[in-house]
Amino acid sequence: MKLARRGLLIILSSPSGAGKSTLSKRVLEDDPGVVFSISATTRSPRPGEVDGREYFFKTREEFQALVKSGGMLEHAEVFGNFYGTPLAPVEQAIASGRDVLFDVDWQGGQQIRNSKLAEAVVSVFVLPPSMAELEARLKRRGQDSAEVVKNRMAQSRAEISHWAEYDYVLVNDDVDKAEVNLRAIVQAERLKRARITGLNGFVQGLNEEYEAMQ
Amino acid sequence: MKLARRGLLIILSSPSGAGKSTLSKRVLEDDPGVVFSISATTRSPRPGEVDGREYFFKTREEFQALVKSGGMLEHAEVFGNFYGTPLAPVEQAIASGRDVLFDVDWQGGQQIRNSKLAEAVVSVFVLPPSMAELEARLKRRGQDSAEVVKNRMAQSRAEISHWAEYDYVLVNDDVDKAEVNLRAIVQAERLKRARITGLNGFVQGLNEEYEAMQ
Repeated sequence: MKLARRGLLIILSSPSGAGKSTLSKRVLEDDPGVVFSISATTRSPRPGEVDGREYFFKTREEFQALVKSGGMLEHAEVFGNFYGTPLAPVEQAIASGRDVLFDVDWQGGQQIRNSKLAEAVVSVFVLPPSMAELEARLKRRGQDSAEVVKNRMAQSRAEISHWAEYDYVLVNDDVDKAEVNLRAIVQAERLKRARITGLNGFVQGLNEEYEAMQ
Repeated sequence: MKLARRGLLIILSSPSGAGKSTLSKRVLEDDPGVVFSISATTRSPRPGEVDGREYFFKTREEFQALVKSGGMLEHAEVFGNFYGTPLAPVEQAIASGRDVLFDVDWQGGQQIRNSKLAEAVVSVFVLPPSMAELEARLKRRGQDSAEVVKNRMAQSRAEISHWAEYDYVLVNDDVDKAEVNLRAIVQAERLKRARITGLNGFVQGLNEEYEAMQ
């Protein structure tokens, strides 16, 4: 039985290398009820990037107008470019009972958690099993110099310091287990009484059915 | 990776016939982390009942002394006999990270939710898909007269009126699906940051590991 419900804003944060991207990709593939939040950015599209698929590409003026009018759920400036989450598509998605997954850092998470959609938020922090394992994963990517890996590790440590702001914490020592756990969190949150908007009507229906039986 | 955590008090309530007993039996069989709460009672043991297995059998004096000293998590009088949940075994179980399942009505649920173990409580209400289906299940048991079924239906309606006091609500139209959902709730609640007592130490370990790498 499918009762109407409000969708979730699933915030997934972790230090880089802890497996957050793999986890979100898997949940998006395996759970058709979850959609990915597409960010807006002022940086130029790279070859192959499509507006509305990788990003919504905006001019600085468009972007700042959205921020001013309260049309951005969260935003930040990174190396001179703006990145952010337009509010409207997220509101539409959750109104129709779809869940929106956000792959954001602690600052993005904090802004979403303090937005007007706060009640719909479920936040999950993914920890690595050890710093040695985190470093090994960063090195295995093989694209980055020792200096870049060192910087990422320092960033990772700073990101980890925000673990206690999240509702749920996963230690990702096995990505299969981590996915099962993340999906259990999503499924359980869908079953929270306060999120199932169709429950009032459903129980009223039971009462009317009972009366009619008398 | 297994971090230390505080166990849960899982309150499962539903009108009789909605499938609560089947559900709790299944979860107890399939999830070794969950144990059943054994009640105390002042009624006499029936043939085959063993003290400490079906019930803790107590005299009225013993029972009332426990209530007076705050040693009962919840209790009620039913047809002149007392029934209740001794606090000590529950506290021991959750301190060692086991989850305790309670098959109680809304009154028991309310007392446990307002007890000193409130923070460990997860409450789940199971609804029938329809009152016709509920009546059919009660009749299928075949043991009860039409009058008894009628009374049970009236009790069921009263029980259902308390659905909104619960954290989660399941509509049991398919017991396999309902079990999957109940187990997802239990698993997700285990992953709540605030319940994992080992997390502080674990993150401190990551920090120390990071420092040692510098």
